[in-house]
Amino acid sequence: MAVKNGKEYIEGIDRQQINIWYQGKTIEKPLSSHPAFNGLLKTQAEMYDMQHQEKIMEQMTFQSGTDGERYGLSFLAPRSKEDLVRRRIMMELWAEKHHGFLGRSPDYMNTTMMSLYTAAHLLQEYNPEYEDNLIKYYEYCRSKDITLSHAFIQPFASRLSELLDEAQDSITAKVIDRNENGIVVNGAFMMATQAATCDEILVFPSPLPSMLEPDNPYAFAFAVPNDLEGMTFICRESYSDTSHYDHPLSSRFEEMDAMVIFDHVFIPRNRIFYLGNEEIGVRLFSEGNFHSYAGHQVLTRYIAKTEFLLGLISKLSDEQNISLEAVTMERISRILTMLENLKSLRLASEMMAEPDAKGYYVPAKKPLIAATIQYSSFYQEMLSMLQDISSSSLVMLPTEADLASDAGDFISLYLKGQDTSAWDRISLFRLTWELAIGPFGGRQKQFERFFFGNTRTLTSRMYNVYSLDKYKAMIDEFLHHGETQVF
Amino acid sequence: MAVKNGKEYIEGIDRQQINIWYQGKTIEKPLSSHPAFNGLLKTQAEMYDMQHQEKIMEQMTFQSGTDGERYGLSFLAPRSKEDLVRRRIMMELWAEKHHGFLGRSPDYMNTTMMSLYTAAHLLQEYNPEYEDNLIKYYEYCRSKDITLSHAFIQPFASRLSELLDEAQDSITAKVIDRNENGIVVNGAFMMATQAATCDEILVFPSPLPSMLEPDNPYAFAFAVPNDLEGMTFICRESYSDTSHYDHPLSSRFEEMDAMVIFDHVFIPRNRIFYLGNEEIGVRLFSEGNFHSYAGHQVLTRYIAKTEFLLGLISKLSDEQNISLEAVTMERISRILTMLENLKSLRLASEMMAEPDAKGYYVPAKKPLIAATIQYSSFYQEMLSMLQDISSSSLVMLPTEADLASDAGDFISLYLKGQDTSAWDRISLFRLTWELAIGPFGGRQKQFERFFFGNTRTLTSRMYNVYSLDKYKAMIDEFLHHGETQVF
Amino acid sequence: MAVKNGKEYIEGIDRQQINIWYQGKTIEKPLSSHPAFNGLLKTQAEMYDMQHQEKIMEQMTFQSGTDGERYGLSFLAPRSKEDLVRRRIMMELWAEKHHGFLGRSPDYMNTTMMSLYTAAHLLQEYNPEYEDNLIKYYEYCRSKDITLSHAFIQPFASRLSELLDEAQDSITAKVIDRNENGIVVNGAFMMATQAATCDEILVFPSPLPSMLEPDNPYAFAFAVPNDLEGMTFICRESYSDTSHYDHPLSSRFEEMDAMVIFDHVFIPRNRIFYLGNEEIGVRLFSEGNFHSYAGHQVLTRYIAKTEFLLGLISKLSDEQNISLEAVTMERISRILTMLENLKSLRLASEMMAEPDAKGYYVPAKKPLIAATIQYSSFYQEMLSMLQDISSSSLVMLPTEADLASDAGDFISLYLKGQDTSAWDRISLFRLTWELAIGPFGGRQKQFERFFFGNTRTLTSRMYNVYSLDKYKAMIDEFLHHGETQVF
Amino acid sequence: MAVKNGKEYIEGIDRQQINIWYQGKTIEKPLSSHPAFNGLLKTQAEMYDMQHQEKIMEQMTFQSGTDGERYGLSFLAPRSKEDLVRRRIMMELWAEKHHGFLGRSPDYMNTTMMSLYTAAHLLQEYNPEYEDNLIKYYEYCRSKDITLSHAFIQPFASRLSELLDEAQDSITAKVIDRNENGIVVNGAFMMATQAATCDEILVFPSPLPSMLEPDNPYAFAFAVPNDLEGMTFICRESYSDTSHYDHPLSSRFEEMDAMVIFDHVFIPRNRIFYLGNEEIGVRLFSEGNFHSYAGHQVLTRYIAKTEFLLGLISKLSDEQNISLEAVTMERISRILTMLENLKSLRLASEMMAEPDAKGYYVPAKKPLIAATIQYSSFYQEMLSMLQDISSSSLVMLPTEADLASDAGDFISLYLKGQDTSAWDRISLFRLTWELAIGPFGGRQKQFERFFFGNTRTLTSRMYNVYSLDKYKAMIDEFLHHGETQVF
Repeated sequence: MAVKNGKEYIEGIDRQQINIWYQGKTIEKPLSSHPAFNGLLKTQAEMYDMQHQEKIMEQMTFQSGTDGERYGLSFLAPRSKEDLVRRRIMMELWAEKHHGFLGRSPDYMNTTMMSLYTAAHLLQEYNPEYEDNLIKYYEYCRSKDITLSHAFIQPFASRLSELLDEAQDSITAKVIDRNENGIVVNGAFMMATQAATCDEILVFPSPLPSMLEPDNPYAFAFAVPNDLEGMTFICRESYSDTSHYDHPLSSRFEEMDAMVIFDHVFIPRNRIFYLGNEEIGVRLFSEGNFHSYAGHQVLTRYIAKTEFLLGLISKLSDEQNISLEAVTMERISRILTMLENLKSLRLASEMMAEPDAKGYYVPAKKPLIAATIQYSSFYQEMLSMLQDISSSSLVMLPTEADLASDAGDFISLYLKGQDTSAWDRISLFRLTWELAIGPFGGRQKQFERFFFGNTRTLTSRMYNVYSLDKYKAMIDEFLHHGETQVF
Repeated sequence: MAVKNGKEYIEGIDRQQINIWYQGKTIEKPLSSHPAFNGLLKTQAEMYDMQHQEKIMEQMTFQSGTDGERYGLSFLAPRSKEDLVRRRIMMELWAEKHHGFLGRSPDYMNTTMMSLYTAAHLLQEYNPEYEDNLIKYYEYCRSKDITLSHAFIQPFASRLSELLDEAQDSITAKVIDRNENGIVVNGAFMMATQAATCDEILVFPSPLPSMLEPDNPYAFAFAVPNDLEGMTFICRESYSDTSHYDHPLSSRFEEMDAMVIFDHVFIPRNRIFYLGNEEIGVRLFSEGNFHSYAGHQVLTRYIAKTEFLLGLISKLSDEQNISLEAVTMERISRILTMLENLKSLRLASEMMAEPDAKGYYVPAKKPLIAATIQYSSFYQEMLSMLQDISSSSLVMLPTEADLASDAGDFISLYLKGQDTSAWDRISLFRLTWELAIGPFGGRQKQFERFFFGNTRTLTSRMYNVYSLDKYKAMIDEFLHHGETQVF
Repeated sequence: MAVKNGKEYIEGIDRQQINIWYQGKTIEKPLSSHPAFNGLLKTQAEMYDMQHQEKIMEQMTFQSGTDGERYGLSFLAPRSKEDLVRRRIMMELWAEKHHGFLGRSPDYMNTTMMSLYTAAHLLQEYNPEYEDNLIKYYEYCRSKDITLSHAFIQPFASRLSELLDEAQDSITAKVIDRNENGIVVNGAFMMATQAATCDEILVFPSPLPSMLEPDNPYAFAFAVPNDLEGMTFICRESYSDTSHYDHPLSSRFEEMDAMVIFDHVFIPRNRIFYLGNEEIGVRLFSEGNFHSYAGHQVLTRYIAKTEFLLGLISKLSDEQNISLEAVTMERISRILTMLENLKSLRLASEMMAEPDAKGYYVPAKKPLIAATIQYSSFYQEMLSMLQDISSSSLVMLPTEADLASDAGDFISLYLKGQDTSAWDRISLFRLTWELAIGPFGGRQKQFERFFFGNTRTLTSRMYNVYSLDKYKAMIDEFLHHGETQVF
Repeated sequence: MAVKNGKEYIEGIDRQQINIWYQGKTIEKPLSSHPAFNGLLKTQAEMYDMQHQEKIMEQMTFQSGTDGERYGLSFLAPRSKEDLVRRRIMMELWAEKHHGFLGRSPDYMNTTMMSLYTAAHLLQEYNPEYEDNLIKYYEYCRSKDITLSHAFIQPFASRLSELLDEAQDSITAKVIDRNENGIVVNGAFMMATQAATCDEILVFPSPLPSMLEPDNPYAFAFAVPNDLEGMTFICRESYSDTSHYDHPLSSRFEEMDAMVIFDHVFIPRNRIFYLGNEEIGVRLFSEGNFHSYAGHQVLTRYIAKTEFLLGLISKLSDEQNISLEAVTMERISRILTMLENLKSLRLASEMMAEPDAKGYYVPAKKPLIAATIQYSSFYQEMLSMLQDISSSSLVMLPTEADLASDAGDFISLYLKGQDTSAWDRISLFRLTWELAIGPFGGRQKQFERFFFGNTRTLTSRMYNVYSLDKYKAMIDEFLHHGETQVF
């Protein structure tokens, strides 16, 4: 079958021979046995297994009208509102597994590839080969159920060097050579989430303009396996740990980020999606409705995460014996209000979806941008609630090993809750600690804060999608209604 | 035709002989010639005229399946989601006229009567006469297109007196006598908006419990014309003025509030909807889904008002020459986000509507409560933007008379904008002044802040409509997943 | 005696023959009999009378070391920290009278003149005559106890016209002619608070640069009586009323704002403080430490106003029977925190005062700017509390005339509080109405929001007064402490 | 000399034989060689060494008037405002070393002991032996320069068990036996910061009332060495690391928290400060002016921390090349405003200090409470700024080992800043990471949020220290001024 199971997923990752650095050393053993990666691999393996569970297989996959094969449903290019609803239901099923903590749950990149695929036709006018490459690569990903990461953030210093000296010393990623069979790329990308736990990587720097048109060396997009010669991955510190009790989130959901360096890497010709013209990059994303399709996936993730936080804050209120206080009612009510907003915005994006020129149904953009703009502050507000409710209980937290030691009796006696054992009470606060003030939660917070860009980017995205003329005209009409201006 | 036009509306109001006090004197002349009332009367007359405009008559009214008559569409008891959409479209048409400034636009009370009507059946088990009275009164309002106000807020001091001394000295409104033909009621209601510009008044105090069951004298509801013997209306100061230029909002939308006193007023038997049992009052509103139906109307009003503010803030940004600044993009983008929230919540309330036991379609409650909880702060945030943008231009504002005087030339020269005449610039800021820091705007702000109750009331309404159990269970499941608890 | 009493103050104002427009007509009768002015005049008269009250005369005035005369203490140019404390005590006495509602309490402009006087010496290097004019004018104001207003905000449209066309069509105020005896000025100033209730007016536009140096026609400052030929005052709508009961604030503290137009007005040579060189204007204010001295006065006003709001919110909490609720404790505690901030910042500005080059003691600038930056939001926060506490009690408010009418009995019965008469309860809410949502309070809110400029102006003022180098060096030191950098 | 140096401090800690658990095992080796403790020990050793640095010895210590000995200045019981200033200067010197990150910098507990000492006299009326014990213990601490921790937070579950069953099963700490020589105590304390890096521990549970008066077993206070039989310390996970480069804060300032269990511990009679009467405990703290003296120390720490954050945010703005943007000016200006508030409040607490009944000078309480109430939100606001400025640069951070590895060249090339080396740029962001989203910073955030109690505790502390009567009277006076009430 075209859809992977968990075992195949892990074997694929372990099989890769990539040049990956962690804490100053290269990792030699299989990632599935490395504590920084194995929790996440296990979680994602369980997610892939869901595709084969009889009860939900119909919801997790779709049967191709062309070849009769079953594919992962997040690869489905939607032809109707019903298709959008099917996509949402599938994404909800995975989100029930990862509770919104996987920013790079495979459906995210599957959706990204699908969105690019729906715009493949525009490549034809530049170069029919590009269109062909993109379509074939989408089909390849779909039929092999490829797990994909992506890279696009360039080094901070490149932003200036590029302008100052286009030709030589710039550290911006660029095409430095090309021949019949492909191109040679040099440069680095700052932060590829899950790069090491994926099969391949999609690379698309924001294509900046150049004087060298139509051979802008900074304008390109391609996808390659992780183990090409010249590729290097450098990981950040891991926040994970093997104990589900001590670190319930990071032991399952730690998505490692890596810097990805391309040192004279040769990219085969059939993997290149465009080259030399920055305009194409812009159009590929906008005409592929990337922000709408990805926004729909991300909003589904936001909702799952909000529900998890709703549950956690309700449990904590019970545990702290404050469920009946007015402040608790206000907090819960505030989260419910957020949740209703998010769910209604998702519903609106589906109900108001419209077909694009090629007949693909695109979720309405305005409600999705509205959700994105708000989520960063919603999320921070909920984290602040966690901190408020937990107070000093968030600091003095023994570990699984402490509980199992000779000192465990003291802990069981003195750290019990009103109606809960010490084991349960500590377990709840360890979860809260990871989310509210631990390093896993810190990265998640930063991640949500900037998911689709900073405030300026998001507000201008919203501003530009609207026309204000009719609202201004309404005021004019109101002020001049029935008036004869005499001055 | 059953639907009124504007002339009929005004004639009806002028015909009333009510005992009404303003600034220490009774008003003797027709309200349509009184500066505190005539602007509003004219606006509402234009709204009633819309029911007869050929182009929109189909949207403004509906044809009864029973008698073939055309009635105002806000009287329609909805039997499908499509009916809810029709109701919304009609309410939008009126809201385009009053831009959300009429908290007591006639569709509000029409909707209230309709909601009570859908619960009339429950009165039968208490007293079949009540059911009959309520149904007949609804039909009367619908067929005469009665303009209705309502009264329910009791004196502050009554809250205590009632508990202390039930029988005698309490100032809480109560039934003090009754006979074959009706009851005698004594008491006062604090704030009936538009009482004097309506035909009749619906009275339903929050029915507090009493020891005297089943003859609780504080439990009752009825509707009567405004000019029964013993009724007195005392108005607050008016914020309106006749110049549309100087006071563009209050000259059109000033809804006078009045205290309504019932001094031994005799209420005819056929106008009584229930009596003596506080439980009925609670059920009448909850089973009539008052908050859902009214919430749907109010949310439509919120949206219209938000669009008006969006237009105004866009115009002001142009006028102040700051349209291209980042702060303007942030402001506008923030309002657009509010607007998307509100619209999506309304759509969700319609899409997720369900039939009640009698087959009436009820808008989903959760999105509507979410909208209500947020609007108060949304509105204040927009007012704050108005103040920020306008700065000192909001203070030094000449009047129409100044412009027409010999000093007008100076004003025209020195108060012009960059691309606008002084007349236009002042006109825009006078509108802003009324809304942002004038007394009309002040009352509107207070009105929106407490429309459906204070924060505590609203948050508990939200809290109680949800069940948290499944969210808590999710956390339990997560924490114990794959764990063997050994302690 | 050099210090005025109230009678002299009012007589002086009534004696003026100024060209003043109100609502499209010129005012012909004495201002002390005009409802838009007489309340304020009476309040300020009482303030001037305080200078003659034996018990506080020592605190209200000072005896000149030069001529032995007693002058108003806000004219005192401070030579020590003790002088600053004396100034503060005097300003507090006046503020106890106006509770911070008079933004142009006479000590504000007295302080402004004093600050310019302390920098008079710098005019000498440009033109000794200017220095002489300024010193003599300060002495004149001090010895006649002149009540002064000021004007400096130019028309919005002037900001562009000036740049586009310097010479002719600009509407920016400018010197259009000059001779042996003085200059002719043409132009308008947007908003002179209390212009009509003062004896004279100080005019100092922000001196913008010009190509025409050293004869920049836009750079000048002067002071003149209000009744020179060619001067016109145009008032905004009045928010005041004669009933202290109905409008307790505006009936006492309404400071009318006026547009002031100079139509070819001849300014006598001895009243000109500088001319033709914009640099002088900047230096006069900065070297006269205007922001420090005025900031000290304004902070004293803020404190008085905050104390008034503290009292009012405490009273309202009692009246609404919520004094013991947690939300009340939080509100009060929040205001007390603001109050402690403001008082400590004032104390710090005095304790850390230092002498300038001429030996005048200048309050420390940083704490004063900190106070100014915060007060706008402090004030809005308190207004929001007023609205929250009062709820619908802020809307349905009868007037003095209602209480006195035949309907008064109903009001007395139904509007009483728990332990208060209706008269007292209404009185409290009418005060709250004026402050929280009435037009007087609206103007005050706007006034405080922009008193010393908008947020951008204030933040850059703070930013520029500090040097960040030592704080950055601390971080460098910390990061490199004990480290040997090996890369 | 009575003042310790760093070597003596570390030797003292290493000499202790305490029963301490970390991650399920007891620690056997000296703490100074354990990575969870050695960084902090080294920092505090350097702080103790400062007492011997010639240049600042006069500021760090004071000479006793009684015995001529030099003692640590934070032990000084102040007899004048000048003494308060000396105390502050000493505390600033230590704070310059730890930048406010040590919540239990030794001056905190020295100040606590000093404050109890100033109230020792009140113990006399209960039992002269208590007074003697307290005075002698203070003198002992002062002359041996004892490093002290404290414990007072009881198990969550104890709050209920105590009420339900006073006698037996309660887990609240209590006296379970007593004889001639002392008492036996049983119970646990949740969170003793730095317990293991101190010589002794002061124990004072909040003395709850009991029916068993005057022998309330829950009311007591004492101080003992850490290594008495029956004492157990259980540590939380450590957030520290030995690399100053990778973890610049936790490698220096990680203050380990521990649960401290007293399992039938015998407390010698001369170390008991009171017993059996909960009233004494309350008075000891209030009459010792604990909140004032400790508040003065804590505010000095807040100021140091704020200055550190000011430096860091300035550096980050430079590094991110946004120093000249308006948003940066606003951020910096906001922090400067906080800093001016905090400094002015400290100054006010000193300037308005007054002597207590025994002649000890006590810093004014109101400004100190105002500072405490605000700091929690100030601090969170600054952390949020760090997150905003840093964006994704906070996530992808290589370590010292990465830089030193073969992959280091890539990092040096691609992670450099505009004008900074990769080494410097990463170093700055690693510091920011620890503070803004790392686990050390998470605990600090929680610590500052609840330092002196939750919001409710703090607001009621402020509320109770003020009298509102005069402010209410001012409103009464204002409303009735010149009025004749006729109703």
